[in-house]
Amino acid sequence: MEQRLTFITLGVNDLAVSRKFYEGLFGWRPEANSSGDVVFFRLNGIVLSLFPREELAKDAGVPSKGSGFRPFTLAHNVRSEQEVDALIALLRSKGVTVVKEPQKAFWGGYTAYISDPDGNLWEIAYNPYMPLDRAGNVSGE
Amino acid sequence: MEQRLTFITLGVNDLAVSRKFYEGLFGWRPEANSSGDVVFFRLNGIVLSLFPREELAKDAGVPSKGSGFRPFTLAHNVRSEQEVDALIALLRSKGVTVVKEPQKAFWGGYTAYISDPDGNLWEIAYNPYMPLDRAGNVSGE
Repeated sequence: MEQRLTFITLGVNDLAVSRKFYEGLFGWRPEANSSGDVVFFRLNGIVLSLFPREELAKDAGVPSKGSGFRPFTLAHNVRSEQEVDALIALLRSKGVTVVKEPQKAFWGGYTAYISDPDGNLWEIAYNPYMPLDRAGNVSGE
Repeated sequence: MEQRLTFITLGVNDLAVSRKFYEGLFGWRPEANSSGDVVFFRLNGIVLSLFPREELAKDAGVPSKGSGFRPFTLAHNVRSEQEVDALIALLRSKGVTVVKEPQKAFWGGYTAYISDPDGNLWEIAYNPYMPLDRAGNVSGE
């Protein structure tokens, strides 16, 4: 099994609300084949898709019931502490909920958390030990 | 905000069990800086990390309580229907739980679902409309 991943799909409560968040507040451009049923954002070599929560459970054939903490996070790394501060300020000015203010992390980085309309957590981080290449991919090796 | 993502972190119930799953059953190689506290797998331009669920909630400063369906899925696309069948057969032979048997999807693809020890869903999929480049990245544009 190759060591790679193709899609991350978020099972959202309201597709229109989530689309508006990622398109309007993150400023991301959906793929042309996005619709009222599913929305795709092409990222660096992978795709983030938004799909109604009930439909996602149905597709996998599992019960959709669940509540509370969603035990996963997504991270968007930037290239300096200043960039973390600037991005959080920008997102806050657009109405995004800041869950944790930018601060030094015990491991030497500098991070903050925001949440999307479903409470999915995005970490905005600077990691001095993990350089990014020009395309924003984790570089090295 | 650049249209990209750096990390996906899964908040797991037992780090050793999850590491064994991804390392032993998926056959993925962890980064050298993985430890008993956190495990990193470098994928295509991004990193999948495993981190204890309680620690993840604490890091974000949110309550860790939650149960039931985890409304997100990860997908590992392959290059043919036969490859879906072969990978599912391989994973099943290693003891991985197959949640949905390989089958045609209404949108023209061919997919199956497995679950990891925490119930996180992985879709193993062939999508004839979304070619992969040699590195396994979504190609085009």
